Amino acid sequence: MNEISRIAVVGSGNVATCLIRGLAERNFQVSQLISRNQISGKLLAERFSIPWSSDLRDLDPTMDAVFLCVQDDQLPMLAKSVPIGNYLVLHTSGSTDLNVLAGIHSHCGVFYPMQTFSAHIQIDWSEVPIYLECNHPEDETSLSRFSHLLSPKVFFQNSEERMRLHISAVFACNFTNLMLACAADLMQSNHLDFSDLKHLVKLTVNKAFDAVHPDDVQTGPAVRNDLQILEKHRKSLSLSPELQGIYAFLSEAIRNRAMKNK
Amino acid sequence: MNEISRIAVVGSGNVATCLIRGLAERNFQVSQLISRNQISGKLLAERFSIPWSSDLRDLDPTMDAVFLCVQDDQLPMLAKSVPIGNYLVLHTSGSTDLNVLAGIHSHCGVFYPMQTFSAHIQIDWSEVPIYLECNHPEDETSLSRFSHLLSPKVFFQNSEERMRLHISAVFACNFTNLMLACAADLMQSNHLDFSDLKHLVKLTVNKAFDAVHPDDVQTGPAVRNDLQILEKHRKSLSLSPELQGIYAFLSEAIRNRAMKNK
Repeated sequence: MNEISRIAVVGSGNVATCLIRGLAERNFQVSQLISRNQISGKLLAERFSIPWSSDLRDLDPTMDAVFLCVQDDQLPMLAKSVPIGNYLVLHTSGSTDLNVLAGIHSHCGVFYPMQTFSAHIQIDWSEVPIYLECNHPEDETSLSRFSHLLSPKVFFQNSEERMRLHISAVFACNFTNLMLACAADLMQSNHLDFSDLKHLVKLTVNKAFDAVHPDDVQTGPAVRNDLQILEKHRKSLSLSPELQGIYAFLSEAIRNRAMKNK
Repeated sequence: MNEISRIAVVGSGNVATCLIRGLAERNFQVSQLISRNQISGKLLAERFSIPWSSDLRDLDPTMDAVFLCVQDDQLPMLAKSVPIGNYLVLHTSGSTDLNVLAGIHSHCGVFYPMQTFSAHIQIDWSEVPIYLECNHPEDETSLSRFSHLLSPKVFFQNSEERMRLHISAVFACNFTNLMLACAADLMQSNHLDFSDLKHLVKLTVNKAFDAVHPDDVQTGPAVRNDLQILEKHRKSLSLSPELQGIYAFLSEAIRNRAMKNK
């Protein structure tokens, strides 16, 4: 394939919206939008003046690439509904194997932007690492060139590597968000403003990324092996068994890491 | 007490350094520095032209307040070594009860700046919430006025409330750092740059604090109850039992929260 210049996007959720907007900012016009959701689909299509359909059978066969921007669990079904064509069929999922497409579409691949997308939040695409995979090496150059429109951080990774990447993001983002949710519960039960923790959290994140490894800047009672404070905290959480369980489990994990790293 | 204008700092670690530097930036000169550590103590004293001693018996009895900036577990011993005087004796620990001082010093209190201090990192004190406690209500005004030198965010909290605050900070910071450490392990074992996650983590933190509650912006396979992906991730982590355990435990916690919040 020479160049990806005509693309169709399937889906109208967070990933589709952010992808279309990111491309529009770079003066790249998406050629077709297909989404089952009539409301969000039409709205998105109108906003960016993209021809829209709710039916995959309307997919324009002259497309160079088709981006499947849907939930992971919809991919197996959707892959079968995309008409067979000469285009490159791509999914955008971190933890879905290329195989979900490879048995069906002769040219397929993965375009996984590692980011947490919200339709209403502007993404700085130039900061987003994009991980690619193709079943035909000859598609790599065109997919890579297309991806560089959005970000300088473009990497090829196979499905297994990409899944481990996705797991890293689960730890760094989903689990971090859980930690903040627990902290918010505690602050609120104390009639305190959760936002008073914001500065502290930002500093923590900066320190972790400035360090050679986050272990090197771990602080708190667990890494100090301060058993007295740990026991006090455990007791103080007795009315919140859920938080108490997480506290005990993660404190133990920190102590174990500290012991191993010694 | 009318005003806290002459203070002594005991200790020469991260908290002592950041406190002295913060006050110096506001043209408040610390009157005496006492630290057992001769190297860091002398260095800090010279840098800010503060009279220094390694012996608590040299504590100047004309001080208005004495700030004990030492590790939590040293406080019980240290409290007994501080000569009895007319000054207000304060500790700076989040999880230590005021009682550690109250039986010994007639005027005592707590000055707890909720922050992660590193001697080499410049702190923006105006962003640091400071939590205070006194055993005599008549000391509250002077302690509060002194604290306002450093930050507009000054609150009075009793020892139990302050401990719950400290626990919130353990979740928001120490445990978040652990999540980043796990992510760094995974990225490195994948020969990938941990810093590629930085933008994603910052966005996650911003989203959590912009939301009414972090639960409202939780993403990932656990909150979607995507059992297929969770199982794939579990298998993929089989060579890292430690990470696998944390992954399973926290995914379950997210699923439970999501169920409760429904």
